[in-house]
Amino acid sequence: MNLSMEAIIWEHNRLRLLDQTKLPRSIEYIECNHYQTVAEAIKKLAVRGAPAIGAAAAYGLVVGAGQIEAADRQTFVAKLADIARELGDTRPTAVNLRWALDRMMMRLAAAPEQDVQELRRILLDEAHAIYQEDIQSNRQMGEFGQALLPDGARVLTHCNAGALATAGYGTALGVIRAAHEKGKQIHVFADETRPLLQGARLTAWEMLQAGIPVTLITDNMAGYLMAKQQVDCVIVGADRITANGDVANKIGTYGVAVLAKHHNIPFYVAAPLSTIDLRLSSGDEIPIEERDPREVTHHGGQAMAPEGVQVWNPAFDVTPHQLVTAIITEQGVIYPPYLENLAKVCGNNK
Amino acid sequence: MNLSMEAIIWEHNRLRLLDQTKLPRSIEYIECNHYQTVAEAIKKLAVRGAPAIGAAAAYGLVVGAGQIEAADRQTFVAKLADIARELGDTRPTAVNLRWALDRMMMRLAAAPEQDVQELRRILLDEAHAIYQEDIQSNRQMGEFGQALLPDGARVLTHCNAGALATAGYGTALGVIRAAHEKGKQIHVFADETRPLLQGARLTAWEMLQAGIPVTLITDNMAGYLMAKQQVDCVIVGADRITANGDVANKIGTYGVAVLAKHHNIPFYVAAPLSTIDLRLSSGDEIPIEERDPREVTHHGGQAMAPEGVQVWNPAFDVTPHQLVTAIITEQGVIYPPYLENLAKVCGNNK
Repeated sequence: MNLSMEAIIWEHNRLRLLDQTKLPRSIEYIECNHYQTVAEAIKKLAVRGAPAIGAAAAYGLVVGAGQIEAADRQTFVAKLADIARELGDTRPTAVNLRWALDRMMMRLAAAPEQDVQELRRILLDEAHAIYQEDIQSNRQMGEFGQALLPDGARVLTHCNAGALATAGYGTALGVIRAAHEKGKQIHVFADETRPLLQGARLTAWEMLQAGIPVTLITDNMAGYLMAKQQVDCVIVGADRITANGDVANKIGTYGVAVLAKHHNIPFYVAAPLSTIDLRLSSGDEIPIEERDPREVTHHGGQAMAPEGVQVWNPAFDVTPHQLVTAIITEQGVIYPPYLENLAKVCGNNK
Repeated sequence: MNLSMEAIIWEHNRLRLLDQTKLPRSIEYIECNHYQTVAEAIKKLAVRGAPAIGAAAAYGLVVGAGQIEAADRQTFVAKLADIARELGDTRPTAVNLRWALDRMMMRLAAAPEQDVQELRRILLDEAHAIYQEDIQSNRQMGEFGQALLPDGARVLTHCNAGALATAGYGTALGVIRAAHEKGKQIHVFADETRPLLQGARLTAWEMLQAGIPVTLITDNMAGYLMAKQQVDCVIVGADRITANGDVANKIGTYGVAVLAKHHNIPFYVAAPLSTIDLRLSSGDEIPIEERDPREVTHHGGQAMAPEGVQVWNPAFDVTPHQLVTAIITEQGVIYPPYLENLAKVCGNNK
């Protein structure tokens, strides 16, 4: 398999998104000639991970801009706003999606004299900037975060906050990559992450590709693994972090955080500042997406549960800030009190 | 489907075991004309659940007794002891397996005058007794345990400790059935229980059959469900309980117990006295079975993880007694201090 495989590729003026639902069995890219294809890819999780869907949506807006036939600026911007709304409505929890779209639209507002042709170019430049800055952020996060990992650290992670969940390198897995690149011996334990198995399919695969030792476990083994003193710290990504430091992330993250607390194991969250949403005061305000029950009851088209059973399928949960040891960002590692310290670092940069 | 479906059937002098690996998709019984077939069925989890494998092994010994051609008592007993050892070695964690086989062999020792033909009859009677007493135990457990469930209780359970895991009625699910039969409104949340999905395949199915409302969740949703104040108590079964009250049960039980503690939710274990092993002082001494990595990496023959990934697949974990609110047995509900109170109830009955 291709070591340099990327989730999002812009090449020859075309957007291609890796269909992550097919990994690791097959590598297929979705050609996105219409923004609707991008919206669909985000909805079905072909592209997933908070930073990645932000970057994908930004490029999706570029694709949409190409579809608008209007020649006058006002109509163009109005139509683009509709497309941005449509892309932004694909998934409710990760704030990076709206952050990226807002940034794109604000960039237009900052170019009041430009005509439609120029605006299209500005949008593409901005999407490229979002993409490149995300990789850069991840590298910086990795550099700051790796200092928290001692040589020999056994690190538990949940879901996939890797290169595939970002423009490249990864947030939680970026920290692990950086420690590995420093020559530290790191052993990763990957929660398989039901229902969609991003841990088994994506994290295990990314770590194997990177040559970083990885052991796959089912989600319900994490507690016993900690009890056996096999875990030195937990690192996860985030889909949204509120002003008080509460963290929305893939379902199951909260359980891991409680287990980490019970075993006195540090619980780290790695996320770019674009994941921090200071407009929300606490995690109670984060909209939590609930997805199709078939994600739980079926696998590969095959039923694993009796027909007619009721299912609860939230895609995310909220980990209260009290359980978060530190938040690793591209501006450094942030410790409690989060209300004060997140505002400070975001104030410096936004 | 057949409402009165049973995991273990002895009929017309033949043993049939329900192949639970095929549930709920198809109902198939394994004809056991040789004890080796019984051993195989236990190993591959066609029959599973601590009390059920005890009863199945007892009948397996009856089948084995029929295979022994020796006419003299001494040779017969020696060969039977070999068969008992083979059946007892199929799975290491659940103590009921050895308990049932020991009881069968001791029954022979208590009949020193009988000839081989009579011994065969005695073995069958003893297997029937083990089977019937298990159902009776479950009913009594249900009666004692249901008193702990208030009307309207929302009960989380892990794995399957139901009719299918026993001779009938169930331990943890027996308590729920008894509350339901008393007219209480009970809502069950069933952890799907990776890797083999006994919760999704068996518990959800049993509850649907019994007309008890059930919601299926993935294991990693239990924490968030508790945080949302949707769980009033947890009830699980057990594979072995040591003298101090430590509980070995299906992998993931420990994590649920920690989560219950964190949320101040009672955590109950329902198990017959045959599950209590006073010879072991604590859970550290319980042998924990590790199973084939393919249980984690594959489903229905299909790979869900990259080839070559390392896997940890313990089938059970140990929940320390500090996390156990009470143990529901056929002799009543036992509270801490377990060291004292388990010895008392077992002393009364063994």
